[in-house]
Amino acid sequence: MEVYVDGIGMVPFGKHPQRSLVSLMKEAAQQALQKSRRPEVEALFVGAMNPEEFTGEGNIAAAVADALELAGLPSIRVETASSSGASALAAGFYAVASGAYSSVLVVAGEKMTHLPTPRVTKILAEVIEEYERNSGASMVALAAMVTQAYAHKWGISHKKLEKILSKVALKNHRNGVFNPYAQFRKEITEEQYFNSRMISYPLRLYDCAPITDGAAAVVITREKSDVKITGVGQGSDTLAVRHRVHLHSFAACRAAALRAYAMAQRGPKDVDFAEVHDAFTCFEIIGAEDLGLLEEGKGWKAVDKGETEVDGRIPLNPSGGLKARGHPVGASGLAQAVEIVRQLRGEVDPHIQVKGARVGLLHSIGGLANNNTVMILERSDAPSHHVPWESPYGKSADIERHHKPDPGRVSREGVLDAYTILYVPPEGFPSPLVLGMITTYSGHRILARAAAPTTFKVGERVVVAKEEDTFYFMRYGFAQKVAFRISRTIRAWKLKLKRRIRS
Amino acid sequence: MEVYVDGIGMVPFGKHPQRSLVSLMKEAAQQALQKSRRPEVEALFVGAMNPEEFTGEGNIAAAVADALELAGLPSIRVETASSSGASALAAGFYAVASGAYSSVLVVAGEKMTHLPTPRVTKILAEVIEEYERNSGASMVALAAMVTQAYAHKWGISHKKLEKILSKVALKNHRNGVFNPYAQFRKEITEEQYFNSRMISYPLRLYDCAPITDGAAAVVITREKSDVKITGVGQGSDTLAVRHRVHLHSFAACRAAALRAYAMAQRGPKDVDFAEVHDAFTCFEIIGAEDLGLLEEGKGWKAVDKGETEVDGRIPLNPSGGLKARGHPVGASGLAQAVEIVRQLRGEVDPHIQVKGARVGLLHSIGGLANNNTVMILERSDAPSHHVPWESPYGKSADIERHHKPDPGRVSREGVLDAYTILYVPPEGFPSPLVLGMITTYSGHRILARAAAPTTFKVGERVVVAKEEDTFYFMRYGFAQKVAFRISRTIRAWKLKLKRRIRS
Repeated sequence: MEVYVDGIGMVPFGKHPQRSLVSLMKEAAQQALQKSRRPEVEALFVGAMNPEEFTGEGNIAAAVADALELAGLPSIRVETASSSGASALAAGFYAVASGAYSSVLVVAGEKMTHLPTPRVTKILAEVIEEYERNSGASMVALAAMVTQAYAHKWGISHKKLEKILSKVALKNHRNGVFNPYAQFRKEITEEQYFNSRMISYPLRLYDCAPITDGAAAVVITREKSDVKITGVGQGSDTLAVRHRVHLHSFAACRAAALRAYAMAQRGPKDVDFAEVHDAFTCFEIIGAEDLGLLEEGKGWKAVDKGETEVDGRIPLNPSGGLKARGHPVGASGLAQAVEIVRQLRGEVDPHIQVKGARVGLLHSIGGLANNNTVMILERSDAPSHHVPWESPYGKSADIERHHKPDPGRVSREGVLDAYTILYVPPEGFPSPLVLGMITTYSGHRILARAAAPTTFKVGERVVVAKEEDTFYFMRYGFAQKVAFRISRTIRAWKLKLKRRIRS
Repeated sequence: MEVYVDGIGMVPFGKHPQRSLVSLMKEAAQQALQKSRRPEVEALFVGAMNPEEFTGEGNIAAAVADALELAGLPSIRVETASSSGASALAAGFYAVASGAYSSVLVVAGEKMTHLPTPRVTKILAEVIEEYERNSGASMVALAAMVTQAYAHKWGISHKKLEKILSKVALKNHRNGVFNPYAQFRKEITEEQYFNSRMISYPLRLYDCAPITDGAAAVVITREKSDVKITGVGQGSDTLAVRHRVHLHSFAACRAAALRAYAMAQRGPKDVDFAEVHDAFTCFEIIGAEDLGLLEEGKGWKAVDKGETEVDGRIPLNPSGGLKARGHPVGASGLAQAVEIVRQLRGEVDPHIQVKGARVGLLHSIGGLANNNTVMILERSDAPSHHVPWESPYGKSADIERHHKPDPGRVSREGVLDAYTILYVPPEGFPSPLVLGMITTYSGHRILARAAAPTTFKVGERVVVAKEEDTFYFMRYGFAQKVAFRISRTIRAWKLKLKRRIRS
């Protein structure tokens, strides 16, 4: 069964200190209903990541139905961390496609700016796997390590990497200027970018999406309209980042993309533009590669050449993305859908209108890329010339799990896969906090803290030691070499002695 | 498209201090997958009410997929407060019925017993509308008022009411003895019931479902099996209980039931037994009336006559219900599905096996009855002799909203619709706390605190006064009458005086 988009709505993203979460969602929903040819929806699907802790409200789905004076209707909340808005749209899609409802209202929102930043960071960090969280890893720290792993994998120098990331930030801010819903409607200069505070090396303030209040809404229906949803795909990944084989790209995105393309009978070459989850600048490049929109390992070059600009080969985030539009976590995925529909309907500012836009792609990341959604939305008059995707990752949506995830005994030497210097560590940790991902020579992957706050080189040899439950690492040097040899010899002697005593 | 039930799984409900929420959900899911003819599920739907605050975990859907080594698969969490488990099953149902997946795993769980009771109460209270919550109303206080309104509406004396409620509690405990998954597997005597602590008059400890850890799982599939899901209905209601026209029954249940019966092409007379949401004993009677299983206003008589016993006319909660099985909030709705399937497959203890059970009904309440789910599950060989429901509430699923919900100026006299004496009030309130629902003579409905902790009679005339944001009420008496007359006269004089000065 085909599912179409009817009305859409969105409140300007930003700070809304005087508004409640429910009132933001109500406003977006009312816009969508007013613009709908079929405003008599039969059910609500509500996306929100954590209203319980952000605003102290439970049963948010019922609260939204009540506020809209739609109490009586079924109202279901859907949550998949920061992709909740996209997942709510997916759940609504299934409900309409099943024939149970002829049209439903999907509404998503989050209110975050009223809380102090450390509190917001702490709530967001609840989606991080426990051990990594307890080691001091926050979202930005993990994203910084992913960024480093990407640069190392494709041999990008630090200087080049910085330049590329700045280009993503500058582009999205430039696009945001023309988006009335964007939180930031001002360009930033390269100088501003490079002068901005380092948050978690190599990510600066301008590499990170902001904290935002916002809400978006979409009415979907069985009745034919000008825009339809043709593909819905979702994929998850291990909760722990260290449990993944590859750190430089996201298996959950590829799994979601495979499913969405297959359902839509589309491939990346059919896509005219995409709203990509740029919670951190590098995620836009990695995401576009995972989606097949940019060539694997060469996405950074495409950015450098301007291919992702509004008038480029494959425009990414013409809306300004999460970077400039803002990132009210549970709302972002649905806001992307609204932006894509506005593009397809030619309703955006001419400066950011993608020419001949007929097929748009939505890409939303939940958690640290472990609950992702990809959707294809297209004009109903888009010709169906399916170009199948020859994914470099194979046809399977299975993900590869690291074979030695949680080591009891690990060898005490290994290679540094990625590291970061975190300047805003969680409460109880020293600043700066240096964290590294290490593959030991025994084949284990561990997350460790640097014994001293120094810089490292990704790919270099490091020494690992465990103290209580925490792993520490340091640069492998002559002194370590000698010290280890000695301690090993002593241990061997002790063992011999024990055996002799027993026998 | 038809949706069938494959494998089911459940962990024994109770206290699991050594286990994590994810491990409980994993165990239930593994059982369901092992018992499935089609264990290769294509997606997960995860029900949980508030793992963020109960256990500090976010993105629970991805965590469960990861724990099951199913990372890669789509995994969506669904939340509708205490009916989350049933709503997850509904969302999974839509996904399979849409054709997007051929089989999905639905798993639901909650872990609560590790927290102190006041903390659990506080988290659960987040689903209560803000004003009512701030007035000191907890779930049990609101349930107690609903119970009183039911008794008043149908002219049940207090003594009779107590007797009826005790019968529900005794029956469910008796049934629980034979359920290996139940938290309480011991009978209680009438004496024990009457000696149990008063929590919120007229509800005693034994009228309330306990705090529980637990998880349940169901695999649903397009492939034909012995049990199918034929009806799914959901309904919401106003967040605030005082905004409802009727306090003695739940519009959200009736809306959900109408939809489920219509989809299943069934009526209440087709139903052989039901798992009803007895979070409080009276809810079992009210729910059964809302569902058309017991006659409106006569449910209490049916209970008195034993019609709801396992061998009665319409067995309710043969599993022991939430009362005896326990109530891990987000898991309860899905546990009901598991219990119904066990009944339909003849897998339960002979003592609680409903003879000739072919059609079972699931009824799950979210919040204070504002996000409810009703489902019909039946044996695939059940004959389809549809007996349409002549609902006494009319055919519409619309709910009636109280026309004067939030009064600015209310008249200072009214009638007490219901009240309760809460002996375990939320932090910051005196014990006992007396709360009342009042319909004022100006037609407003308000929730108020008694000025003094005395007993009242439902239906009696009361006087209302507002101080800051709180309404207070007291018995209407001679003194009040005189005082009011005087103050009214003084006010009239003042008004006259003002007018004279102006003119």
